Amino acid sequence: MNRRDFLTGAAVGVVVGAGATAAIMSGQQEAPAPAPVVKAPEAPAIVKDRLEVAIVTTWPRDFPGLGTGAQRFAKRLQDMSDGRIQVSYFAAGERVGAFDSFDEVASGNAQAYHAADYYWKGKHPGWAYFTAVPFGLTYTEMNAWIRFGGGQELWDELAGEFGLKGLMCGNTGVQMGGWFRKEINSADDLKGLKMRIPGLGGDVMAKLGASPVSLPGGQIYENLVSGAIDATEWVGPWNDEVMKFYEAAKYYYYPGMHEPGSMLSAGFNKKFWEGLSKSDQALIEAAASMENDVMMAEYNAKNGAALARLTRDQGVQVRKFNDEIYNSFGKAAKEVFDGVVTHSDLAKRIHDSFDKARREVGGWSNVSDQAYVEQRNRVLGVSS
Amino acid sequence: MNRRDFLTGAAVGVVVGAGATAAIMSGQQEAPAPAPVVKAPEAPAIVKDRLEVAIVTTWPRDFPGLGTGAQRFAKRLQDMSDGRIQVSYFAAGERVGAFDSFDEVASGNAQAYHAADYYWKGKHPGWAYFTAVPFGLTYTEMNAWIRFGGGQELWDELAGEFGLKGLMCGNTGVQMGGWFRKEINSADDLKGLKMRIPGLGGDVMAKLGASPVSLPGGQIYENLVSGAIDATEWVGPWNDEVMKFYEAAKYYYYPGMHEPGSMLSAGFNKKFWEGLSKSDQALIEAAASMENDVMMAEYNAKNGAALARLTRDQGVQVRKFNDEIYNSFGKAAKEVFDGVVTHSDLAKRIHDSFDKARREVGGWSNVSDQAYVEQRNRVLGVSS
Repeated sequence: MNRRDFLTGAAVGVVVGAGATAAIMSGQQEAPAPAPVVKAPEAPAIVKDRLEVAIVTTWPRDFPGLGTGAQRFAKRLQDMSDGRIQVSYFAAGERVGAFDSFDEVASGNAQAYHAADYYWKGKHPGWAYFTAVPFGLTYTEMNAWIRFGGGQELWDELAGEFGLKGLMCGNTGVQMGGWFRKEINSADDLKGLKMRIPGLGGDVMAKLGASPVSLPGGQIYENLVSGAIDATEWVGPWNDEVMKFYEAAKYYYYPGMHEPGSMLSAGFNKKFWEGLSKSDQALIEAAASMENDVMMAEYNAKNGAALARLTRDQGVQVRKFNDEIYNSFGKAAKEVFDGVVTHSDLAKRIHDSFDKARREVGGWSNVSDQAYVEQRNRVLGVSS
Repeated sequence: MNRRDFLTGAAVGVVVGAGATAAIMSGQQEAPAPAPVVKAPEAPAIVKDRLEVAIVTTWPRDFPGLGTGAQRFAKRLQDMSDGRIQVSYFAAGERVGAFDSFDEVASGNAQAYHAADYYWKGKHPGWAYFTAVPFGLTYTEMNAWIRFGGGQELWDELAGEFGLKGLMCGNTGVQMGGWFRKEINSADDLKGLKMRIPGLGGDVMAKLGASPVSLPGGQIYENLVSGAIDATEWVGPWNDEVMKFYEAAKYYYYPGMHEPGSMLSAGFNKKFWEGLSKSDQALIEAAASMENDVMMAEYNAKNGAALARLTRDQGVQVRKFNDEIYNSFGKAAKEVFDGVVTHSDLAKRIHDSFDKARREVGGWSNVSDQAYVEQRNRVLGVSS
């Protein structure tokens, strides 16, 4: 999507995420424009057990990665079922606003949403863990936790309280730390910094004396150019490039501590889900699982090339947060989590299970992927 | 599977992989014992477009991870199609020997195999790239290459020459470097070492003066105990633990350079595949893709806990290959690949495409997963 179209709202429903509680992009309530992209094929004369599924989402239509992934998932459901599952897909604002997706599905008005579940953390802080939290799990760690570490069971318990059932359905991978107008050489440099960073990541920044602000995606660029904000995070090179933040902020920091592997979810109305045959449940699970893998592969394939273009063509300066800054992030994050776990027994159980996976699977990373990639890249001279 | 059962062959078809060309376990030709685990449910009175799929594999029945993953994939095909796809699943030796799976499917006698494609590298060296090669891609990098970096197209071209069509269907992740009876402090310590390490990894070891040997899985333990071999690699902690190599070799080295993310594949007979409806192709792709994700999650979830047990209960000493040794591995691997690419135009194109993904996606790793996990684990004190 062209950035101008995006900023001016020429594309459908793209004045995004006012009051967003999360970093990744979300569409705002807009005039309904019900125009499902994924049109069901003409129904065959006799189709047994036809299933109609309306999917609402938090992404503008065709937004790279998040939106296109959700659309691919919707189309796949139809393809796999030979049209027996008929999907009506609604981008943010086409049927309801992005953040009304939750109620639309919980109420049974729609059958499913595609979203980042941390958007619902105002309803329960446990939701954040099923997208991303500061110092949280990476893509492969999240998959291990959800599938074999008790994560899905806790997610089912939480979602069940709201009449929902969630499935993993995409991931952005590790996000960049953000765009800064000046170098950040110590935690002191964060003090007083006005930074667009929503959610728990923003809470961490606030503990360090920064002023986190929430801004809809379409307003970040202008605020950065005018100097109203000093910094912003967004997603990663592939998504950030189109936003042209580099015109106002040359320092692009890594690694982001706030969203180390943002999982997207397909959230179903629980009664609808439980009414499905075992076979349809298995089919939908596989479709969602495939998107979980495909979206991550797409981000990984495209981020590197985008980062290379940014440094080569746009003079972007890539910088690494140093150890002292990361120590400060860690201390502040601990304070944030100390608050989260006091919310409820369920919040504490989710945190503890998540933390156990982080230690066990994260510890295994030290002797597997971490150690291997470090040596391979060193020996072969593979650089970013 | 109990190690004794495994070693004595009490389980079906487990005298494994004599002359194996690869490190991960494979079943050897055994008396056929056609006993499909995945029994098709009783057919409904009228089932349109019933599809019969015989799957042969290179894994002993119920072998953790590889075998159980292949069986889960087979069952999922039936579940997703409500029994319309009827799968007969044969572990290694139950219908044909492990390494006859290729011919069984290429000839059309069976419709699909589940295997590690590097078993076929004797037919064409290009096959190795679609499982794992020394200094190759990790799980997430492999997914990015196959789906968005031209990997699938090259795989289709190679497989097409043999009447096959491959889909990603599982991964073991980064494998450990192996079990050694003495510490390895320099490349000189590898000279004269008799090590069970098959495939291209063995070729790398040979260039460094070691004597790589191929041994079926069921014979490794005895040879290690008797001193006939000095070292062996296998898979990773979860699979290695049951083999009890620690009784004879205490030093467990990481990271393995030889198999940094061994992808398993569902290989279909090409004519069978092309005769399927678009819908059935989509359904099978999603089932395979789900297993790709689930198997990796299972290895990641279980390896860490197994490694902890090995060090705590069995006195296993975990050691890291140092930089000098890795430099030597790198130099030797380059010589091995220089030989591979001279095989054919296709081998060279596969290598070049693979190398491009390694540089682009691998470079992105430096600023994403690598940098993040390093900082997170350091700050939180997450250790293996």
